[in-house]
Order: sequence, then C-alpha cells, then structure tokens
Amino acid sequence: MGHDNRCIGVFDSGIGGLTVVRELQRRLPSETVVYFGDTARVPYGIKSIQAVTAFARQDCEFLLRFDPKLIVVACNTASAAAIDDLEQRYDVPICGVVRPGAMEAVRASGGRPIAVIATEATVNSDAYRRAIHAVRPGIIVHQRACPLFVGAVEEGRSADDPIVEALAADYLGPLRLLQPAVLVLGCTHYPLLRPAIARAIGPAAALVDSAEQTAATVAAILERRHALTDRSGAGGLTCYVSDNPQRFREVGQRFLGHSVVDVTWVSPEEFLAGEVHTV
Amino acid sequence: MGHDNRCIGVFDSGIGGLTVVRELQRRLPSETVVYFGDTARVPYGIKSIQAVTAFARQDCEFLLRFDPKLIVVACNTASAAAIDDLEQRYDVPICGVVRPGAMEAVRASGGRPIAVIATEATVNSDAYRRAIHAVRPGIIVHQRACPLFVGAVEEGRSADDPIVEALAADYLGPLRLLQPAVLVLGCTHYPLLRPAIARAIGPAAALVDSAEQTAATVAAILERRHALTDRSGAGGLTCYVSDNPQRFREVGQRFLGHSVVDVTWVSPEEFLAGEVHTV
Repeated sequence: MGHDNRCIGVFDSGIGGLTVVRELQRRLPSETVVYFGDTARVPYGIKSIQAVTAFARQDCEFLLRFDPKLIVVACNTASAAAIDDLEQRYDVPICGVVRPGAMEAVRASGGRPIAVIATEATVNSDAYRRAIHAVRPGIIVHQRACPLFVGAVEEGRSADDPIVEALAADYLGPLRLLQPAVLVLGCTHYPLLRPAIARAIGPAAALVDSAEQTAATVAAILERRHALTDRSGAGGLTCYVSDNPQRFREVGQRFLGHSVVDVTWVSPEEFLAGEVHTV
Repeated sequence: MGHDNRCIGVFDSGIGGLTVVRELQRRLPSETVVYFGDTARVPYGIKSIQAVTAFARQDCEFLLRFDPKLIVVACNTASAAAIDDLEQRYDVPICGVVRPGAMEAVRASGGRPIAVIATEATVNSDAYRRAIHAVRPGIIVHQRACPLFVGAVEEGRSADDPIVEALAADYLGPLRLLQPAVLVLGCTHYPLLRPAIARAIGPAAALVDSAEQTAATVAAILERRHALTDRSGAGGLTCYVSDNPQRFREVGQRFLGHSVVDVTWVSPEEFLAGEVHTV
C-alpha cells in the first residue's frame, strides 16, 4: 500500500472553512493541514464570479508553495465560481464543497425537491443546481441567499439568539412553503446556526452539511490514490491569513471546535511574491 | 474671487460613501464628483488598521489620476484608520468623515456624554474618542460596534423591518441606559436606518450624521481656498468600482437618492497600474 505524507491544503475566503477542517480532522486525524484564509478580501459571497475566480487562483497558488497532495476549496462561493477553472489550471487534485454537498442532497432527496441556502454569489452562479442536475437531471432545486447569517455567526450569535431565530424565519419561511425534502447548508458558516435553521425549515426537510460530505470525499480520493498518510498521532494544523490573525484566532475557535494556535499573517507583498515570512 | 473647476474625489470601501455624495450634491450641486468604491475588498470595517491604511492609500492614488482639488474619505473606517497617514502622504487637501462628525457631536452635546456607533475597526481604532477629545478633552464617549447594520442595509432592509428593529434594540439598548446626549452615526450605512436607530436610542439623544457635517466641511474648505467651481448647472457624478458594477448600480440608488448611471469597472491590474479602461 502506498502512502503520501504531504499536507492537505485548504483555503477559504476567511474563517468559515474551519468547519471543513474540523470534519477533516475528525475523519483523518493524522493528516497535516495547511489552511489559508483570505481575511483581507473576505467575504467573497457578495462579489462577482470574475473577482472570486481571480482570488481563488491566488489562494491556490499560495497553497501550492507547501506542495500539498490535495487542495480543498473550503468555500462554497469559491467552489461555485471557480472549481472548473482551478481543476483545469493546476495538476494537484482539487476538491470543492459544492459537488459533495450536491451528491449527498440528491441521495437524501429520493428525487423530491431540494432547497439550497447560500451566499448571493453562490446562488447567482447557479452552481448547486448544475451540480445536482449533473447527478440527477430534472430534480426541482430552490435556491435562496441568506446574507446576514454570515455576519451573525461572526458577531458571535448562536442558534438560540432571537435575532438569528427571526432571520431564520424570514429567510426559510418562504422555502418551507415549497416543502423541500432536503435543505443544503451551502455556506460554511451555516452549520453553526444549524438548530435555528432546522426549526425554521421544519422537521420534514433533511439537512445536508457540505463540510461532512467534503471530508468524506477527500478521504475517498486519498484512499483511491493510495495517498493517505502512514503517520499516527495528530497531524496538526498550520494557518495563514491575509489580515487580522488576532481576530482569526478569536473567532476561529467556534468554527474549529478547539483553539486555533498556529496563525501567521501573510502580507500582500508576500502573498503575491511567492515568499512566506513567518512571524 | 478665484475658482477651481477640477473635480472633488470621493472614495469609500464600497457603496456607503454615496450617502456623503448625496449631501455634497445637495450643498454643492455644481461641483463635479469622481467616486471610487473598493467593492472588490469591501467591507473595511472587519479588517486591521494596517490593511485599511494600505487600501486607503491605493484608493487615494487611484483618485489622484483625476487631478482632484480635494479628496473626501467617505468611509468612517478608512478615516479612522488612515486620515493622518493620507494627509502626510499627499499634497491635495483631504477631508475625512470622523472629524466633522466629532465636531458636530461636541457642539450638540453641551459637554454631556456622547455615544458613537460604528464598525468594529472604527471602534477599535478609538478615532472618534480622540477626535472628540481634541475638540473638548474629558467629555465622556461611549463606543459600540453594530456589525449587522451594514449587511441589513445592503440586503435592502429599511428602518421599519422587524429584523432591523430587533437589531437596533439589541445594539442600542445598552447605550440608551448610559443616557447619552448625542448619538453619532459613525458609519455611512447607518443614516438609511435612522428612524429605527432614533426609536431605539430614545428621544433624549440628538442624532449626528457625519455625511451632512462632512459636506459642510468640504464647502467651507473650498470656500476658504477660493476653490469652488464657477460653473452652474449640475456637476455630475462619475463612479468607478473594483468589482460588480451591476450590484453597485442596483444598491447605490438607495444611498444616493437617485439612480447611479455612470459606473465603470476597474480591473485589479488597472487599479494598481495607473490606467483606467472605460467600458
């Protein structure tokens, strides 16, 4: 059996991708993860496909310096906008979060309607509908942007906060009337509000969290390529951010489930120049 | 009497600075305004002082290509982080929004406590307290970040939206207990939620809107320098954005009070290279 002890690279527009890292660490605890959060340009979800694609390429190229065996696009917006572009452009295997979530949604739906909540940019890209129809054409897909959920999570609000409850009712009420069998949490921030979202959509809809499915897909890809690590013990997580490492450390803990220790700031010059200065 | 028919340059992290343009157009309708909105990197309010300063320099340098007679930093976060840096770095007169708002707040307070609501970065910079104390040392200043207000406005919510009412009660309730005489709207998005904010802070506090005060300050500077235009008729507004001109056009109307017609996208290469390609 072959093995590969190189790292898994993970990037996100900011902090949300840590929910994907959490699932990766649960499923593949001995793998080493290098994470890049583009906190200088966060959020991606209100920006154009062109801008997000350009950002995603730079994020990928930053991670390629660490010679990863696989790159996870742990951002729904970047996956929706740029996954085809990135796959064509780079040799390393790339795994987004949209396709794993879409596949699980189809499986759980039994052919009945699927609802997707995500950022503005993800909804506008229509990526979830395309990914779902690639697996099962003709299935009904409802999509809705929930812009304030991201800010609410980053502000420290949890699922039992009255503002979150009111937002969930506001965003999900119209979707609930359409009686979807499945609701996809199409943004890495949304799992932190899962109980409020579940209450608002009602018990008839099964919730699909892209983070879990993405970790399962990463494990399957590495297994198929005989590229899992043969080390034992915890693999460790090293984080790089383009701005505000202190804020990343403070807010990141809630996304990761444990404290974020190793965070390095990458200046704009270093980010574009191909060098990392560790402070 | 001298005059100067060059434009006034205005920049903001995105769309919010249009509330300042609206006041400028009210007070100085014949002046020509060139606006830059950094919609590729918006928002600035969750980013570090270092990042915001670097962005503000680039925004200024972009506007300097249009040979403006004055530059307005129509963004509280950029004014709070970078106004001293920009004033030292460039020869053109520069007017931020923090000092005009602070001066009006002191005037309206009669020495009683002042409350300031703003972004995280503006509050962390302590710029309003410093600007208020520069005018009147020792006055009590309470500062509070209201992060979700920006997203709520950009999502299209207005002051009578129940979510906005709940947010206003949540953010302003604790400030109201401190009985401030004045509440400064320290973010260019907040004037759009003014009625909800006024209800939540109560009738005892006078509201100060930096946009109005900034327009008055710009008029005073130009008058003093004999640099007002001698043209008559409407001066016109030309907008440049670093991403998503369509979204800027759609959302901008609510900030400006009339439609935003002339919007040009500036690519990252053009933005940094010193050339503007008008499409």
